[in-house]
Amino acid sequence: MDLMEKLVSLCKRRGFIFPSSEIYGGLNGCWDYGPLGVELKRNIKNVWWHDMVVGHDDLAVLPGAPSPYSMVGLDCSILMNPRVWEASGHVGGFSDPMIDCTESKKRYRADQLVVLALDVKEGPMVAFAEGDDEAQKGAEKRLAKLLKTKAPLEGLQIVPLLDVGKENFEKVVGPDVAKPGTLTEPRAFNLMFKTHVGALEDSSSVAYLRPETAQGIFVNFKNVCDTARVRIPFGIAQIGKSFRNEINPRNFTFRSREFEQMEIEFFCTAENADQWYEHWRERRYKWYVDLGLKSERLILREHCADELAHYASGCADVEYEFPFGVSELEGIANRTDFDLKQHMEYSGRDLQFFDDQIADKEKRRFVPYVIEPSAGADRATLAFLCEAYTEDEIGGEKRTVMKFHPKLAPIKVAVLPLVKKDGMPEKAAEIYRRLRKRWSVFFDDKGAIGRRYRRQDEAGTPFCVTIDGQTLDDGTVTLRDRDSTEQTRVAVDELEAQVAERINA
Amino acid sequence: MDLMEKLVSLCKRRGFIFPSSEIYGGLNGCWDYGPLGVELKRNIKNVWWHDMVVGHDDLAVLPGAPSPYSMVGLDCSILMNPRVWEASGHVGGFSDPMIDCTESKKRYRADQLVVLALDVKEGPMVAFAEGDDEAQKGAEKRLAKLLKTKAPLEGLQIVPLLDVGKENFEKVVGPDVAKPGTLTEPRAFNLMFKTHVGALEDSSSVAYLRPETAQGIFVNFKNVCDTARVRIPFGIAQIGKSFRNEINPRNFTFRSREFEQMEIEFFCTAENADQWYEHWRERRYKWYVDLGLKSERLILREHCADELAHYASGCADVEYEFPFGVSELEGIANRTDFDLKQHMEYSGRDLQFFDDQIADKEKRRFVPYVIEPSAGADRATLAFLCEAYTEDEIGGEKRTVMKFHPKLAPIKVAVLPLVKKDGMPEKAAEIYRRLRKRWSVFFDDKGAIGRRYRRQDEAGTPFCVTIDGQTLDDGTVTLRDRDSTEQTRVAVDELEAQVAERINA
Repeated sequence: MDLMEKLVSLCKRRGFIFPSSEIYGGLNGCWDYGPLGVELKRNIKNVWWHDMVVGHDDLAVLPGAPSPYSMVGLDCSILMNPRVWEASGHVGGFSDPMIDCTESKKRYRADQLVVLALDVKEGPMVAFAEGDDEAQKGAEKRLAKLLKTKAPLEGLQIVPLLDVGKENFEKVVGPDVAKPGTLTEPRAFNLMFKTHVGALEDSSSVAYLRPETAQGIFVNFKNVCDTARVRIPFGIAQIGKSFRNEINPRNFTFRSREFEQMEIEFFCTAENADQWYEHWRERRYKWYVDLGLKSERLILREHCADELAHYASGCADVEYEFPFGVSELEGIANRTDFDLKQHMEYSGRDLQFFDDQIADKEKRRFVPYVIEPSAGADRATLAFLCEAYTEDEIGGEKRTVMKFHPKLAPIKVAVLPLVKKDGMPEKAAEIYRRLRKRWSVFFDDKGAIGRRYRRQDEAGTPFCVTIDGQTLDDGTVTLRDRDSTEQTRVAVDELEAQVAERINA
Repeated sequence: MDLMEKLVSLCKRRGFIFPSSEIYGGLNGCWDYGPLGVELKRNIKNVWWHDMVVGHDDLAVLPGAPSPYSMVGLDCSILMNPRVWEASGHVGGFSDPMIDCTESKKRYRADQLVVLALDVKEGPMVAFAEGDDEAQKGAEKRLAKLLKTKAPLEGLQIVPLLDVGKENFEKVVGPDVAKPGTLTEPRAFNLMFKTHVGALEDSSSVAYLRPETAQGIFVNFKNVCDTARVRIPFGIAQIGKSFRNEINPRNFTFRSREFEQMEIEFFCTAENADQWYEHWRERRYKWYVDLGLKSERLILREHCADELAHYASGCADVEYEFPFGVSELEGIANRTDFDLKQHMEYSGRDLQFFDDQIADKEKRRFVPYVIEPSAGADRATLAFLCEAYTEDEIGGEKRTVMKFHPKLAPIKVAVLPLVKKDGMPEKAAEIYRRLRKRWSVFFDDKGAIGRRYRRQDEAGTPFCVTIDGQTLDDGTVTLRDRDSTEQTRVAVDELEAQVAERINA
């Protein structure tokens, strides 16, 4: 099993993540978080909310920032007036090129396929998923068979399918068939889920499940300015579900149809936008590192000019080296004043900010620039799961351990009475209750102590407290560290302070 | 203005709740939480999650409970396999009777209309919304006009529209018109929002936005049993959005099309189900009281036999006296083994629980009973907002104050330097930073101190800390209590302990 298979299996077996509606065969691209997973994801979202919103220091100048700034939160509905998505460009342009195979009945993202041929102009060409080495080998074999020769072939060309030209599609063999001519022309497929609000099912009642949380912030910009007494620069943060009707959901929870975002829209002057962009790139990158993603697997990649949206003046991705490849965790973009100006045009409302502190009267009213750090909560969860997954050997015995940062661990402390007698369960219950006031604590008195440790290692519990015979004699317990498995004896009265110190260390 | 109008206005003005996509004219039945609202609702959800899940004492026997029990969390997707909703009965039966008026083009819930007539058998009859006194007066006038006589009429009959019989609809005058015969026959309108998953828009790709979170728990019952090492009795809790295509959303956020639920499914044996039902009724009622809803406005109402669903053996509502009437906050139902058995039948999977501790081998495998406490997060938020809203007079001056329980207040402490000089802002910043480590704290140095207090009163901030001239002399600040407006001098070093004590009091 490769790492990803092992992780998916552990997630299922230990209750981190289940396929949605599994007893009915699931729903492609949708996932459920189990008892451990829900706590892990809650912790990630709560730490983000704390670090970005309620715990943010409004008075301090953070490293790289030109000035202090304030942050407020927002929680918008998933269903919105459909004109929002006309203004944002999603109704017109939020689509992927889709291709069907009339023989295999499968559907592909046209931009994710490449073709392999001896001579692309002549054909035959065999299509396969770009970057998939197995698929490439298969494609070579199929090409050799068509040409009635033996693999390996020499002098092969590989070009994107979309560069072949639809007039040449009849020479292309689809990814899951043997003969050419079964691929349809690419057509634009809008990724927004559509529904109808109210009892009529016609064009007047169409609404979409939001494909991003960001637009909720833009359409509330004026409301926030009017009520929260903010001044430029300031940020609005939101956590919430978004939906995209992906043609091919894949890579476990990474590309799913229902997902949760953690987005910030940070409003500043045009003059300072570049500086704020730098600040947010660094601040967001550092957030992942501080929570345990190792910098050798975490890349801050600046987009090239030809990757940028027409309105954006800068964009960088925080990318993580997942087992299935380097992929985006978060994008940080300088979106200029594009979004607010679009909504001004479509809604007819004045969304300018008014700043009476600016000396020049002409400049007091302006449409601010926006820096957008947009993170995926499920992707962050998956990255922390991948990073945590460790196989090591302790005293000659193999174990699997999830090395979560203590702040993110679903359970902080497990309380384990060594045996179910001699007053140990009672003492353990007392300690359990004391610790439970502050943290998520698990009580386990079932099975051999070694097995109980292993179970907690797999759950990622950073600390195990064991109540043994000595506890009743001298009032000490053992405090076991998940990563080193080292056990130290600690007085019960000092336990809480010790755990607190280690969690925050 | 009545209380509800005042509250809606305050919510808008202070950033608790805005209409969704307001700059585009809104979307009926959808609402956005602003900077203060998002913190209030987060606090309510987090307190619920703490009290019901992570802070629940797995070892204790709670009052009224037959035994200790454990609680675990879950977070399921909103889009699920559509067969879930066939098994649950929502595809077949989750509908309201809807009626159209061909003249006014308006749409009504047929079961919410009554008709008024001198003689129902003869007609004419005039329809209006049940319980709406204004509408009733209007209906009387319209009836008098039709009968060419003067109001008030005597000997009027009022009966539900659905009792009139559709063959008599031609004699009924719709609620917004003057002449009879414009109401259509009632038809069943399914309340689930429908969408299509994948690129095909046909019956094979239909999916629904979940109308409740509960079914996600039932379909994961086996997954949780297999991974979380739970034993009967235990509960599974979930917080998440649900959607219902209400014909008439109304009463601010109370009846909306997108809403958030906080649901528990508690699994127990059939023998103990009645006792657990009692326990959960009391436990959930008390939760609201402990967070500040006054018991004189909070009713625990047991359903009569004819209100019960056919499978339920008991159901009670926690109802709150909103300004628009007494309405349901939460329902607690004994759903027997109905749901799990339905899913066993539809999925073909064995969802029995296996308990090897039971002596009788025959009885070890069984389908547990379910007690379901199902609460609305938005309804709870609205109840806490209504309860908090207070107008009083302080020193001859009227004020509006939101008396939230300190645990729920969006901001716990405001730190206010009296003037922007003499080192007060610096000292205030120091205190702000110290308190911010633990709580949501707001710094405000703008405007007269009296106005700043009023602003915090409206936001519901329980404590204001003012740094004045004396602070720099003797190291004390004033700590102002929101409700009494009483100010006491407290040493800076004792501030944190004092605030902590008062928040938990």
